[in-house]
Amino acid sequence: MKYCSHCAATVSTRIPQGDNRERFVCDQCDTIFYHNPRIVAGTIPVWEDKVLLCRRAIEPRRGFWTLPAGFMENGESTEQAAQRETMEEACAEVKLGQLFSMITVPHIDQVHIFFTAELVDGRFAAGAESLEVALFAEQDIPWHELAFPTVKQTLQRFFKPDPAGVHVFDILPQQALRL
Amino acid sequence: MKYCSHCAATVSTRIPQGDNRERFVCDQCDTIFYHNPRIVAGTIPVWEDKVLLCRRAIEPRRGFWTLPAGFMENGESTEQAAQRETMEEACAEVKLGQLFSMITVPHIDQVHIFFTAELVDGRFAAGAESLEVALFAEQDIPWHELAFPTVKQTLQRFFKPDPAGVHVFDILPQQALRL
Repeated sequence: MKYCSHCAATVSTRIPQGDNRERFVCDQCDTIFYHNPRIVAGTIPVWEDKVLLCRRAIEPRRGFWTLPAGFMENGESTEQAAQRETMEEACAEVKLGQLFSMITVPHIDQVHIFFTAELVDGRFAAGAESLEVALFAEQDIPWHELAFPTVKQTLQRFFKPDPAGVHVFDILPQQALRL
Repeated sequence: MKYCSHCAATVSTRIPQGDNRERFVCDQCDTIFYHNPRIVAGTIPVWEDKVLLCRRAIEPRRGFWTLPAGFMENGESTEQAAQRETMEEACAEVKLGQLFSMITVPHIDQVHIFFTAELVDGRFAAGAESLEVALFAEQDIPWHELAFPTVKQTLQRFFKPDPAGVHVFDILPQQALRL
């Protein structure tokens, strides 16, 4: 960030009065610009004991498999975001279950949340951001071709014998590299 | 948003290629600016069957009572944000329990999350953003002087006989007004 989006003057990083961390502040109009983590919302879509995965058609991690998920938009709820992303990436209508995981990825300023979900009618197809979409039984999950550590850890926990409760944890940079 | 924060040229709202909603896009360098919901993280701090509430010293809702909570910052986890806010607003060190509620407030583009928590040593005090901080038994909660609907609904659910599980719901504008 170099310029104020309100008045086009230059911005500097400094600690505003009453604050305790550096922010971008306009040198002219003193507007303070906050940057906060973003939510990625998705689902674990199930149909007849199989989980629906999408092979990514876009970077990052093009060609790798993921649960349908994407950035939550202004004006929608977490549930709506998760359902919308499942429709956009997998052309699948889902009925949401419980919140299953909430995972912070601090080094990229993201919080990933996944809801359990059931396909409404078993229909799905590759959306614009997917190369292909397919159902996988537990033993067929492409563990070494998963796109993101949050997806891998969510699936690992999902297939444990007693996956009850919400799984709240963090992914550290070294874990992200070990995927 | 009027000007590009990268090159100071004017921005327009339009739907970028491959997207399906309007964004701010720079007229000169084509940078796309996304705006996403922000997370407010807080705790339900308990000590000897009482809940710690803070009377707000700042707007909005100055003078009203709230659970300690505030905007999650880049680089921290949801749990760290909740603990930090509890320390900043109530000068209280807490041990976190479970994620208790995740509430979208779509009309202000916020997601509020609250963790159950226990005071570590029973010590607390008013932080810079609080007029006073106090422990309340259920029957003494100032229900009509609570600052925000997400706080009210989180407390109502917390005091129900069987509050197990995560409470995921939304606050609509008309509910916000009815507080």
